[in-house]
Amino acid sequence: MAVEKLGRSEAESALAELDGWEFDRDGDAMRKVFKFSDFSEAWGFMNRVALIAEKSDHHPEWFNVYNKVDITLTTHDAGGLSQRDVKMAKAIEAL
Amino acid sequence: MAVEKLGRSEAESALAELDGWEFDRDGDAMRKVFKFSDFSEAWGFMNRVALIAEKSDHHPEWFNVYNKVDITLTTHDAGGLSQRDVKMAKAIEAL
Repeated sequence: MAVEKLGRSEAESALAELDGWEFDRDGDAMRKVFKFSDFSEAWGFMNRVALIAEKSDHHPEWFNVYNKVDITLTTHDAGGLSQRDVKMAKAIEAL
Repeated sequence: MAVEKLGRSEAESALAELDGWEFDRDGDAMRKVFKFSDFSEAWGFMNRVALIAEKSDHHPEWFNVYNKVDITLTTHDAGGLSQRDVKMAKAIEAL
């Protein structure tokens, strides 16, 4: 089943409900930078996100250095943001 | 103990002994992109690198999306490449 790209207002509503996620790539992606006390804590978080990603077959683009984790979500099949990104961001926030 | 930055010729010799690592940031960093069959395999690799990083207290700057892992090594305390980066690259290659 094709994944539909969210309309701009849908995407704005979705982001408004989330904490700290911002549009990136002209609204075709959403991004948040997480900071932890050290690498061990950041890595623990990343492992939990990895499990969510694998389980939902939706994978983030992410960058890590030491205690910083920079996550970008987008749905390539939809050419932008979809409900899959919103669902994943919510799952990450719930950790 | 201070970590010494490698001279250019030392750094070139070190990279010549490694497989596929290239200079980045005007020679102040080294970088290699690894590709795997899927996220699961990439994540397994990243976990092993994370253990090396934590054990040696030397952490990579890295980016992942699905099966791709893009690793940059540099030593901030030395303002460029040091033996710590070479050691880490060798440990990664040995995986």
